[in-house]
Amino acid sequence: MARRLGRLFKDVQRLVSLSSVNTPLSHPVIQAPVHRFTGGSVRTNFMRALKELPSALSSKPRDFSLPNSSWGPEMMRLYEHYNSQCEMETEGGEKQKGPWKRLPSYNRILKFATGGVYLSKIIQSKARLFTRNIRDPGAAFEYVLFVNSEEQKCVCIFQAGHLLEGPPGHVHGGAIATMIDTVTGTHATVLSGPVMTANLNINYRSPIPLGSTVLLESSLDKKEGRKTFISCKVTNADGSKVHSETTALFLSINVSHLLLGG
Amino acid sequence: MARRLGRLFKDVQRLVSLSSVNTPLSHPVIQAPVHRFTGGSVRTNFMRALKELPSALSSKPRDFSLPNSSWGPEMMRLYEHYNSQCEMETEGGEKQKGPWKRLPSYNRILKFATGGVYLSKIIQSKARLFTRNIRDPGAAFEYVLFVNSEEQKCVCIFQAGHLLEGPPGHVHGGAIATMIDTVTGTHATVLSGPVMTANLNINYRSPIPLGSTVLLESSLDKKEGRKTFISCKVTNADGSKVHSETTALFLSINVSHLLLGG
Repeated sequence: MARRLGRLFKDVQRLVSLSSVNTPLSHPVIQAPVHRFTGGSVRTNFMRALKELPSALSSKPRDFSLPNSSWGPEMMRLYEHYNSQCEMETEGGEKQKGPWKRLPSYNRILKFATGGVYLSKIIQSKARLFTRNIRDPGAAFEYVLFVNSEEQKCVCIFQAGHLLEGPPGHVHGGAIATMIDTVTGTHATVLSGPVMTANLNINYRSPIPLGSTVLLESSLDKKEGRKTFISCKVTNADGSKVHSETTALFLSINVSHLLLGG
Repeated sequence: MARRLGRLFKDVQRLVSLSSVNTPLSHPVIQAPVHRFTGGSVRTNFMRALKELPSALSSKPRDFSLPNSSWGPEMMRLYEHYNSQCEMETEGGEKQKGPWKRLPSYNRILKFATGGVYLSKIIQSKARLFTRNIRDPGAAFEYVLFVNSEEQKCVCIFQAGHLLEGPPGHVHGGAIATMIDTVTGTHATVLSGPVMTANLNINYRSPIPLGSTVLLESSLDKKEGRKTFISCKVTNADGSKVHSETTALFLSINVSHLLLGG
């Protein structure tokens, strides 16, 4: 709590210095320098300032699947294509659920999952999801997943940043495998509950230029007891070029077993 | 060159401010404030200061395969095991080449490779090798590769940092695939020259706890024309537990084709 308040104080200071330069009247509450925050009315001002800093006190995590300034035109076009099919309008003008659903994405698996409050205590607090471990927007993995329950399909729009280099000027085979594992694994989880990757068989057809946007399409092949078989194709944004084709196998697991030693 | 000098100037400034606080006499050359660096004797001092800033003017890149403070006891033990076999001592006390060779590792493929001076011009200057894109030691991929030409084997000692999380408390399947691609791809390159990954078929046997050190052992299966077939096993540090088994196929390529569009 002390650290959170410390961070908040820094945020207020930053906002003060920014507002005094750029927007002298838009944030009247924070025109007074921070060191004058000692009296009654100043406290009121301070409390009002807090309301203007939603990120500072809010425990709501950042959803990385939402657009940011690093997303290029291809990424935005594909995002809007699928996002517009998440909620449809009927002829009568009413809104209703569409065939696709956008999946939110955080940088820590358990912290924000059901039961995470308990589980996160036994895991290193510094741990971060591999695909969301770099804060700089656009530098590494920019992606968003949509799932279509009726068609048992999942798509992922992926923009590969400059920190994912493998062969000169192209995306690392491991970064491609990482996105394939992410998409097929998420899809298998949606279909079968908690799973672990048992097999990934990836055929790389053509290299992906660094900085480009590609589409990953995942579909269910079959389910057999604890096994979920998924296929995944990676193509360029308009689907005219195949970058890779994969079959993947996932095994249903009990998460508590994983936490007690796999 | 201008940027390099700018960086150097900042380094000198930092060293001046540090030395004036901490070590007033140990670096006499930099006691004079930077803005006084205008006369003859000051120039001598400045040149002497440069010699004390080896990193500032040196173009020698950092070799990430050398030990750093984040390496745990398992990582160090395995490193020393293989490193001691890179140079052996004969009975007569003479030094000679051992069966293993440590491979250096940089955070950019082309910049420091033969021909890189030309090639790097046409690739984004910000690009970094995926497995070396995080500066914080120990946070992500810590690894070192050794190759044994006679036995056509390659080993990699890999310590998985907290930013590589997939399943709660365990390494992401994509991060494991990334290391497998790195080790088998490097091995194929040593054996066959420039290659691209054509297939990775990974069987995940047991999850890898975050923070642990594992061993990747890669061996040549066969070579057929442009094809190089490699196998790779990932085990825990003492080899008693198998984490994954992989077959990989690489195709020999002409790097210039890749740069002109794959």
